Amino acid sequence: MAMKTISFLSIISFLALTLSLVIASDPSPLQDFCIGVNTPANGGLHNARAVNNAVGSNVTGVNVNNLPGLNTLGISLVRIDYGVNGQNPPHTHPRATEILVVQQGTLFVGFVSSNGDGNRLFTKTLNKGDVFVFPEGLIHFQANVGRSPAVAFAALSSQNPGVVTIANTVFGSNPPINPNVLARAFQLDPKVVIDLQNKF
Amino acid sequence: MAMKTISFLSIISFLALTLSLVIASDPSPLQDFCIGVNTPANGGLHNARAVNNAVGSNVTGVNVNNLPGLNTLGISLVRIDYGVNGQNPPHTHPRATEILVVQQGTLFVGFVSSNGDGNRLFTKTLNKGDVFVFPEGLIHFQANVGRSPAVAFAALSSQNPGVVTIANTVFGSNPPINPNVLARAFQLDPKVVIDLQNKF
Amino acid sequence: MAMKTISFLSIISFLALTLSLVIASDPSPLQDFCIGVNTPANGGLHNARAVNNAVGSNVTGVNVNNLPGLNTLGISLVRIDYGVNGQNPPHTHPRATEILVVQQGTLFVGFVSSNGDGNRLFTKTLNKGDVFVFPEGLIHFQANVGRSPAVAFAALSSQNPGVVTIANTVFGSNPPINPNVLARAFQLDPKVVIDLQNKF
Amino acid sequence: MAMKTISFLSIISFLALTLSLVIASDPSPLQDFCIGVNTPANGGLHNARAVNNAVGSNVTGVNVNNLPGLNTLGISLVRIDYGVNGQNPPHTHPRATEILVVQQGTLFVGFVSSNGDGNRLFTKTLNKGDVFVFPEGLIHFQANVGRSPAVAFAALSSQNPGVVTIANTVFGSNPPINPNVLARAFQLDPKVVIDLQNKF
Amino acid sequence: MAMKTISFLSIISFLALTLSLVIASDPSPLQDFCIGVNTPANGGLHNARAVNNAVGSNVTGVNVNNLPGLNTLGISLVRIDYGVNGQNPPHTHPRATEILVVQQGTLFVGFVSSNGDGNRLFTKTLNKGDVFVFPEGLIHFQANVGRSPAVAFAALSSQNPGVVTIANTVFGSNPPINPNVLARAFQLDPKVVIDLQNKF
Amino acid sequence: MAMKTISFLSIISFLALTLSLVIASDPSPLQDFCIGVNTPANGGLHNARAVNNAVGSNVTGVNVNNLPGLNTLGISLVRIDYGVNGQNPPHTHPRATEILVVQQGTLFVGFVSSNGDGNRLFTKTLNKGDVFVFPEGLIHFQANVGRSPAVAFAALSSQNPGVVTIANTVFGSNPPINPNVLARAFQLDPKVVIDLQNKF
Repeated sequence: MAMKTISFLSIISFLALTLSLVIASDPSPLQDFCIGVNTPANGGLHNARAVNNAVGSNVTGVNVNNLPGLNTLGISLVRIDYGVNGQNPPHTHPRATEILVVQQGTLFVGFVSSNGDGNRLFTKTLNKGDVFVFPEGLIHFQANVGRSPAVAFAALSSQNPGVVTIANTVFGSNPPINPNVLARAFQLDPKVVIDLQNKF
Repeated sequence: MAMKTISFLSIISFLALTLSLVIASDPSPLQDFCIGVNTPANGGLHNARAVNNAVGSNVTGVNVNNLPGLNTLGISLVRIDYGVNGQNPPHTHPRATEILVVQQGTLFVGFVSSNGDGNRLFTKTLNKGDVFVFPEGLIHFQANVGRSPAVAFAALSSQNPGVVTIANTVFGSNPPINPNVLARAFQLDPKVVIDLQNKF
Repeated sequence: MAMKTISFLSIISFLALTLSLVIASDPSPLQDFCIGVNTPANGGLHNARAVNNAVGSNVTGVNVNNLPGLNTLGISLVRIDYGVNGQNPPHTHPRATEILVVQQGTLFVGFVSSNGDGNRLFTKTLNKGDVFVFPEGLIHFQANVGRSPAVAFAALSSQNPGVVTIANTVFGSNPPINPNVLARAFQLDPKVVIDLQNKF
Repeated sequence: MAMKTISFLSIISFLALTLSLVIASDPSPLQDFCIGVNTPANGGLHNARAVNNAVGSNVTGVNVNNLPGLNTLGISLVRIDYGVNGQNPPHTHPRATEILVVQQGTLFVGFVSSNGDGNRLFTKTLNKGDVFVFPEGLIHFQANVGRSPAVAFAALSSQNPGVVTIANTVFGSNPPINPNVLARAFQLDPKVVIDLQNKF
Repeated sequence: MAMKTISFLSIISFLALTLSLVIASDPSPLQDFCIGVNTPANGGLHNARAVNNAVGSNVTGVNVNNLPGLNTLGISLVRIDYGVNGQNPPHTHPRATEILVVQQGTLFVGFVSSNGDGNRLFTKTLNKGDVFVFPEGLIHFQANVGRSPAVAFAALSSQNPGVVTIANTVFGSNPPINPNVLARAFQLDPKVVIDLQNKF
Repeated sequence: MAMKTISFLSIISFLALTLSLVIASDPSPLQDFCIGVNTPANGGLHNARAVNNAVGSNVTGVNVNNLPGLNTLGISLVRIDYGVNGQNPPHTHPRATEILVVQQGTLFVGFVSSNGDGNRLFTKTLNKGDVFVFPEGLIHFQANVGRSPAVAFAALSSQNPGVVTIANTVFGSNPPINPNVLARAFQLDPKVVIDLQNKF
């Protein structure tokens, strides 16, 4: 009987697996390409980029804004350089899922699910060749936890995925958000909010 | 000559306007409806809800999770109650645009564009009947700036738009994000981060 | 044995429910917003509108045609005023599902499924705060069955959903449809058809 | 000067034409095919079908309901037989555009645009080999205006386009729509409405 | 026990069938139509076309390039004439599924699934009225195996499906692909490749 | 006058550029993720893979078939190892665009546009860090033209893009395509076709 119950569950699992493989939806373009493809990108993804900034990382993108041939093709690419102790701070992509592969070094990565899923944190430590997925619109981050610089490549499921870095967007918008709004939202003293706004 | 230049610009503007009206894309369902439509929602959107919480607001949703008839139909609805000085704190919807109409009271609302657009803040003070749009995936908020409770209805362009409240997601995830990661991202002392994590 | 059969059915139901929650498809925009958002709509949804017309109702819309900021964002909104005994007569939206919430009064609402589903009529009497869904492309209507004027707000899953009012489109097209075609289709005397065409 | 203005307009026209050619959106499936393709359809589209019904026509469809191999592939096909004086009465497809080619005979065809476009009627008389397009969700019809039976093939841009025949849906729903609602909507005497409901 | 296993399988089959009927995704346009619909196509699909070419067939298309009214409507149509022994040689449509109905004659048709599915060949001999589906992006062909000319109509699920004829694209590109690349890919002597490139 | 004409053209070019940046369409998922994300992929993309096969290359994929967490997220990733003189032979992805970045070595890459665009060949020699795009459904290839092994990473705009290797699909299908069909299509002697079929 127990075995039979297990058998039912395995059928359910099998179905869930089988059926879930066919339910997403990717659109297609309406022509081979929309304008001159593969014109040179600005700088490409060739070299390590300077990471001497506040967060110790640098993101170089190839998207429709600097490679117009990507127009209508639904994909883009970034290279991320991380200094020692550097991080790509918590951010979202409003229009894309991201898939990341580590090129060099060791990264601690994670994302948080939405309110309805309990804001659960999913993390993993990745080494060279490891792959991780950040679902569309969710807050995620990567931190270099190795002893040397790290490099990753990531692809995004939109020609123009957008980036919303949380700290900069909340505390560094132009003009600033009313400090009283942020003080109540983050349960901080308004003075601390104004201090943060001055930093970003 | 100057006038002619203006004339060129007005053609461009006219074209930009005309052409931009036809370029979006809405998908359709594959059947009239997918399961029993219009079965009773949990509670509906009838009554004012309690707003005696940390942010002084309460969001009641009708989406595919409590109205299964919405399945495959690409839309959902919420009622938002705001106490005096209450706010719907900064959050994103990872899978939907939101259109809001004020039912009662006065709201100060805003959203911040993505990094590539300079994290610009767009705000407006809305009275009864006013309408505002929050584009997909961008951080936005509403605050009751009137002297009495306020109510708004908002529709979202997905059967399951999701909500990511920034403060709760960043400082209240389960388990918590490593405080050192957040300290560097928000340029806060790690102790302040831990204090915040204890609040959320 | 009977219980086991029930068990099978409950698995099927569970699967049908679980799986059906993830199969729809909403597209995303390709940028934060496409042109200046939240420029003033023509008149907004503030005031009751005159309902002294043939059907005793008035629909005020906020869509991409009067709020260009909605461009590429896949949603729009309407306010519907109903006089006593007024109705929003049978119509379809060729490109959108509609979700309606009653603001004031009592409405009798319904839609008819397509031929393949047997042209079944689904109806409900709605009071303030009640919510109802009209699936994309199906014929639907609302009638004020209360003793006072009624008001509803409705959102539609397209920036430009379109409206096809059945009576006006069939009997009031410009130029008119050949009366013989309509006479056979509606099994009416051609003279009755011509009378109807003169009314619309 | 006038010529120059014309020249500007011609640029606009050219742009409108050129740009409009690339703005639609077709989605793709997520696998080669979803279940056994090309299993035999029920009856196929081989033979003339009986047209001795009220409207003198007969539509035979090949869609996902009788050719499961069409699943996820976004297209379906119909054969329409028209008796002498027969018609395919005014109807809509809630989820598809239709493209029709005449196989035999002479058809008078048309569709009506939506309210926002002024309910304009577009018609054409088609002979063997002529092609016509009926946009998604709009009311359209075909009538045999030749002296012999006619046959057409039509393809639809969905695996399950749906059909809403106007007269049957409005006057023949199950259960019937309240006659008072239809009487006001169609400006008919309620008795005439009840007569019509008894016919359908 | 065996019967019970069968019963489990039949539940799975039933679920697979039921659930698979609702998982595809067709997008909708954003307006009734985008430019003047149903302007005359170049030549239409009226007459038999010459088939005295290398492959003995001729494809006449009605798509957005010659019928601008199809813009944003997601569908197109072709007529294919086949001489005796003629064929529509192996090709793909990069952006569309195809559904074909035989108008006259006897065709041997087939398509090959992708590498992950084992490059399986699916074929069928079709007579007048028979219908067959070629899934998006897969290599397919039709050959006239009857004693007289044949004609078919086919619809495609895109306004601009594109055609990639394998032999012409591989051996007849402009400029030619490096013969050494093709020699290794097709395991042919480079001289044979150059001979083929001179033919196409 | 000439300058003015140029000015018109520059407006057109500017518009074409500006407008083309907003016309594609990426869909979104309907939930944060569909099943357990980031469960271990089979082997990952860590190590060089054996390239001692007929074409001297090896493609390792991370897609929904071995990383179920990608379900509904619209993206996948591959690592390609090329031996000296190795190639990734001409193939298509029926459901995805590909963006490739060279990790190590020198690659000669190209794709051929569809028949309607004249089967034009677009090629480029890529070094470490260079990026190239292969539009959806078009035939493309990469060949190692350096003196040492090469490695590339490529992302594809579908969770299950599919691969159709031209030579294997045309000459190595299971069962084989009738040699007479291929002989006429490729203008080869049927004996040569049978020889090829024996090789694949």
